[in-house]
Amino acid sequence: MIVKLNDHASPAAQSAILEALARQDYTTRRVSLPFGDFIVGLGDGAGDTTTLAALESVAWARRGAERAVLAAIDASPTRTEVPLGRTSIGGTALAVIAGPCSVEDRDQIRTCARFVAAYGATALRGGAFKPRSSPYAFQGLGHEALEMLAEAGKTTGLPVVTEVMEPGEVGPMAPLVDCFQIGARSMQNFPLLREVGRAGKPVLLKRGPSSTMKEFLLSAEYVLLEGNPNVILCERGIKTFETATRNTLDLNAVPVLKSQTHLPVVVDPSHGTGRRDAVIPMARAAVAAGADGLIVEVHPDPARALSDGDQSLTLAQFRTLVEEIRPVAEAVGRRVEATPVPNFGEPRTSGRRRGTGWGAGD
Amino acid sequence: MIVKLNDHASPAAQSAILEALARQDYTTRRVSLPFGDFIVGLGDGAGDTTTLAALESVAWARRGAERAVLAAIDASPTRTEVPLGRTSIGGTALAVIAGPCSVEDRDQIRTCARFVAAYGATALRGGAFKPRSSPYAFQGLGHEALEMLAEAGKTTGLPVVTEVMEPGEVGPMAPLVDCFQIGARSMQNFPLLREVGRAGKPVLLKRGPSSTMKEFLLSAEYVLLEGNPNVILCERGIKTFETATRNTLDLNAVPVLKSQTHLPVVVDPSHGTGRRDAVIPMARAAVAAGADGLIVEVHPDPARALSDGDQSLTLAQFRTLVEEIRPVAEAVGRRVEATPVPNFGEPRTSGRRRGTGWGAGD
Amino acid sequence: MIVKLNDHASPAAQSAILEALARQDYTTRRVSLPFGDFIVGLGDGAGDTTTLAALESVAWARRGAERAVLAAIDASPTRTEVPLGRTSIGGTALAVIAGPCSVEDRDQIRTCARFVAAYGATALRGGAFKPRSSPYAFQGLGHEALEMLAEAGKTTGLPVVTEVMEPGEVGPMAPLVDCFQIGARSMQNFPLLREVGRAGKPVLLKRGPSSTMKEFLLSAEYVLLEGNPNVILCERGIKTFETATRNTLDLNAVPVLKSQTHLPVVVDPSHGTGRRDAVIPMARAAVAAGADGLIVEVHPDPARALSDGDQSLTLAQFRTLVEEIRPVAEAVGRRVEATPVPNFGEPRTSGRRRGTGWGAGD
Amino acid sequence: MIVKLNDHASPAAQSAILEALARQDYTTRRVSLPFGDFIVGLGDGAGDTTTLAALESVAWARRGAERAVLAAIDASPTRTEVPLGRTSIGGTALAVIAGPCSVEDRDQIRTCARFVAAYGATALRGGAFKPRSSPYAFQGLGHEALEMLAEAGKTTGLPVVTEVMEPGEVGPMAPLVDCFQIGARSMQNFPLLREVGRAGKPVLLKRGPSSTMKEFLLSAEYVLLEGNPNVILCERGIKTFETATRNTLDLNAVPVLKSQTHLPVVVDPSHGTGRRDAVIPMARAAVAAGADGLIVEVHPDPARALSDGDQSLTLAQFRTLVEEIRPVAEAVGRRVEATPVPNFGEPRTSGRRRGTGWGAGD
Repeated sequence: MIVKLNDHASPAAQSAILEALARQDYTTRRVSLPFGDFIVGLGDGAGDTTTLAALESVAWARRGAERAVLAAIDASPTRTEVPLGRTSIGGTALAVIAGPCSVEDRDQIRTCARFVAAYGATALRGGAFKPRSSPYAFQGLGHEALEMLAEAGKTTGLPVVTEVMEPGEVGPMAPLVDCFQIGARSMQNFPLLREVGRAGKPVLLKRGPSSTMKEFLLSAEYVLLEGNPNVILCERGIKTFETATRNTLDLNAVPVLKSQTHLPVVVDPSHGTGRRDAVIPMARAAVAAGADGLIVEVHPDPARALSDGDQSLTLAQFRTLVEEIRPVAEAVGRRVEATPVPNFGEPRTSGRRRGTGWGAGD
Repeated sequence: MIVKLNDHASPAAQSAILEALARQDYTTRRVSLPFGDFIVGLGDGAGDTTTLAALESVAWARRGAERAVLAAIDASPTRTEVPLGRTSIGGTALAVIAGPCSVEDRDQIRTCARFVAAYGATALRGGAFKPRSSPYAFQGLGHEALEMLAEAGKTTGLPVVTEVMEPGEVGPMAPLVDCFQIGARSMQNFPLLREVGRAGKPVLLKRGPSSTMKEFLLSAEYVLLEGNPNVILCERGIKTFETATRNTLDLNAVPVLKSQTHLPVVVDPSHGTGRRDAVIPMARAAVAAGADGLIVEVHPDPARALSDGDQSLTLAQFRTLVEEIRPVAEAVGRRVEATPVPNFGEPRTSGRRRGTGWGAGD
Repeated sequence: MIVKLNDHASPAAQSAILEALARQDYTTRRVSLPFGDFIVGLGDGAGDTTTLAALESVAWARRGAERAVLAAIDASPTRTEVPLGRTSIGGTALAVIAGPCSVEDRDQIRTCARFVAAYGATALRGGAFKPRSSPYAFQGLGHEALEMLAEAGKTTGLPVVTEVMEPGEVGPMAPLVDCFQIGARSMQNFPLLREVGRAGKPVLLKRGPSSTMKEFLLSAEYVLLEGNPNVILCERGIKTFETATRNTLDLNAVPVLKSQTHLPVVVDPSHGTGRRDAVIPMARAAVAAGADGLIVEVHPDPARALSDGDQSLTLAQFRTLVEEIRPVAEAVGRRVEATPVPNFGEPRTSGRRRGTGWGAGD
Repeated sequence: MIVKLNDHASPAAQSAILEALARQDYTTRRVSLPFGDFIVGLGDGAGDTTTLAALESVAWARRGAERAVLAAIDASPTRTEVPLGRTSIGGTALAVIAGPCSVEDRDQIRTCARFVAAYGATALRGGAFKPRSSPYAFQGLGHEALEMLAEAGKTTGLPVVTEVMEPGEVGPMAPLVDCFQIGARSMQNFPLLREVGRAGKPVLLKRGPSSTMKEFLLSAEYVLLEGNPNVILCERGIKTFETATRNTLDLNAVPVLKSQTHLPVVVDPSHGTGRRDAVIPMARAAVAAGADGLIVEVHPDPARALSDGDQSLTLAQFRTLVEEIRPVAEAVGRRVEATPVPNFGEPRTSGRRRGTGWGAGD
């Protein structure tokens, strides 16, 4: 049960609401968000909205058992813009989050960061803790990678986005991270959602590969209920019968989610296709569909990447991606901020393949 | 087994090839296509390409059991442009095929045709024979509808596209039809594919809701094997677990198919979403992904449509669609031909709902 | 709209119903089935059941737009038993339909028929017209195969079940066929469903690989509406993301369909798994779930099969299958009729692989 | 990389292996399991099995990047039997794990435990921490529920199985739990898998709703790599397009997994169908397919259940389930241990519905 308070709800009025919720067998919580103050009843209560709506200072009361309420579009009068670095996600400017699947060494992440910063990225991604289907696959360099990533971010001025896999790591990671990524496999890791909610930093929440949009928004609701409004939804493909691509990128989710929530929606064409040759066309498509940004894997030398080499763009391809999405963004009333720097130069790539063919998680 | 002949292959050389195939237990057929002359071996033969490739006048010999060969991108040096009306599909100009799900009466199809012609359609769609999951649902007006459609096409100068459901109808329908649509449920109706192959007219082949891209191309191969190169592939959404949309539009198929075949690829955002509010964003996305055209359902009064009302655009929305895809098309180096006519006027829509909620086939 | 007549409905009462339906804009049809006489209104009518139910001689009136009505369990007071050969499908005795994927030659089908007859089959399957994803794959021997199949059926006393792929073949095939199979790819080939409905012979209707149970029953409804009650539903696996098996056999469909329809339900573990080693366990599971029978692929020499070799049982394995389902059948109150003949003998199998690895349709 | 040691491998031989792995850039670990001692190389190493296999005391060396090795059937000469309470899972006796979705109060779990113990359960399930798609739904009574569950287990002599959702809870829960359940949503929660691996207790690992069997086995491998061989795999349904059931129970997984792994496989027909009326038939089917056991939801009063009421059996239905699986078990050479106690009595159920319709996780 969610009760929205009117502005200037008196302490007495709030107490009355809390008591009414308790009488209906709810556990109560106050939630303060930029678009309102709420009193929430959790658990299996009586579900009587009428009595609650009639109380003083109550703007509305809604049941939330099956649909997100705080994340729903009518909870907020304006679309949420999530601040990240010098920009925000959800406004006119497109977010372009780029970087390697995994941070592999100091040189790799520095090179990558400088390049993507020069050619239009607004944030830097890089995995330190990698969920891998196989325990034998490379699992990330851990805390060491986090420091390299943070350093690369600081040098280039890019905020950093990286995945957190367990509640106990949220606290230790927080000082080095600008935005926590919740990977697709963790979309319904509820203790983790609560913990990143409490940390207060922006959260990039990836859609689970077999999750409906309704379930996706309910996972966002877990974060919002901790008083953290800064959730960026990320469509990254769903599991289907098709084997020509790693996942089926569900761009339908862009207009449908935008009609159902005030939260920004970005798209990951790297995991959504699993094929380097499809990433740029699908990045253009995502922008045309109305996405608020992109998150793409870029590697100085994809053939040697320790994970996700097949779907990582080269640095030159990333530059092409930005060049190609710019006019599409303009065609739909958006803009790509960055001014590409000509002749930045690009490291040579070698031929030898490292790492496993097995795709890494996200 | 597919054997490509060199130019000017002598009759003697051709006989030798036919004999070699027969010795390998194949049933043979000659196939002439704009991009080459072929001798094809069907059935369960020995699969010895080496012997065949060594024969005189043989450009190459390929096994075709598991992958399309004639539809494959390397079978033709150029992309296929399918002629349709005054334009073609697969060139720089985007195809915009628009019209109602079903032809319901003379007035409806006339109104719709004039409007879509004025605002940028390059072809007119309209169902005369409707595959419906339920036998109780409206199944189309049949031959009567075909005549209305043909008349509306003639009046507006638009070529007409309509679905054929059974082999026996191909002949009778041919004089009134410019392009046969093979619906999603018929993608693997092989007798029907052969029959439209023989008819020689352009074929708009819709992807089956549970068909992989590989199977999709193999179905196109059935048509090409009849000597008909004019196949337009249409991505229209696949069946997944997601229930917020009628199907999951798989735009990944656009770049992936374009990398695998020389045939043009169009997208149906109406069936691919099932939601009117998502059709225009996904039409933009399809164009940005590199589609060669769109096929969209438009109805003068969707609330009264006998089928697919929920996903049909109003006439005004169709106009918006064309206006919105134009700059996206330009951003990707394509163009939308038509010059919108201002203040064309639009019929008023009424409120009463006709027809069933059950979606109609495609 | 479906109107059930009371017994002895007078001609005058029937006329009144027909007129009432016509006034509601329906096209009308009389349907006589073992469980009642019906007047049906097709198309997009007004849907007013109240007026109809109030007429004389009307037992009930139901709308049928979104759900099957004649196939629904409450349309008939008893479960339908479909007569086939000397037995029937849907009673206490389990149907065991067995035979090769394709009829390949006279010897193969004869050997197979004699063996499966001796070990417990109640009907003989064998493909004459094979839907194949690839036009290059073996497509069946056609009419010649039909005659071989019919002869093998006559010799062994087994009724024959074979697939029909197009409406125009129903008439020519009828004299040689005891039960028409509608393959999975044809489940929504509505002209074909109508035609086999009219032919009056039993119809084995396979579930489409992306069809819901609701759509499955609506396809059965097409056949029933032609006055043909003898529809056998066949679960044969659906398309999912899992690649370890060819399809995902959805045994949930057995109890769910049995709770929704009076028609018998059989299971095809051959296509439902695509793996020979999983066929027998899943056959046992199907029987335990409550299936009315099985349809399995058996080949004297699977390694040389022209289609579906990977999922075909050897003759010895078929014998094991029957031995293993017998006690399971008894555990759920059913019985397997046949008395296995000891030491029947079994042809030797050779090693050479013929045919393509590409699975054949069903 | 996994290296299996011969019996009596000398310390010197082991050191040589460790050094060889380190030279190939692996992080090493020793793993001792009932079926052998192993030295494992984790991470992105050179993958040179030849050099390793040639070393002294090496039985074999296998790469493990894409397939489970320790969980694979050829890693162990015998099938693993997981000890649980007085019995084990994976032998001739079928495991029957039964109990409510959630522990709701002391009386509910006691009643349930006594009843299922009397009628044939071999273990007691009950949720204390419930993953719920919606944050507003009942999330379990937590530690209080654990104590009630443990008490009910002690009273009845049944070992208890309950879900753990985060690594930090494994330690605190361990004293009260006989078997940790890893829920479907947590199948790829790798930190959690490692933690329950270290705890050493049996682990019931549920298949993720969009996970392939290959991924399922790789998740089991995470647990085995911690030296814990006691993993019970649980098929509980996958996400598909079908909406008549909550999930599609993939019984194909039973024979396929049993052919690929030595670990026992149980089936959850409650989550696998989501419909009370389908649970018993699918329980029979699971046993017939060769499952080593069942896990079913049972509630004294399903209409008042706080979660999963729609799929919970009544106590009387549980009794029927055991009666019906017994002869099926015997038909496949297994047995159901318990002797049903006649006239145990059964609490009356009331009518009022509590809880939400929204299904609870597993």
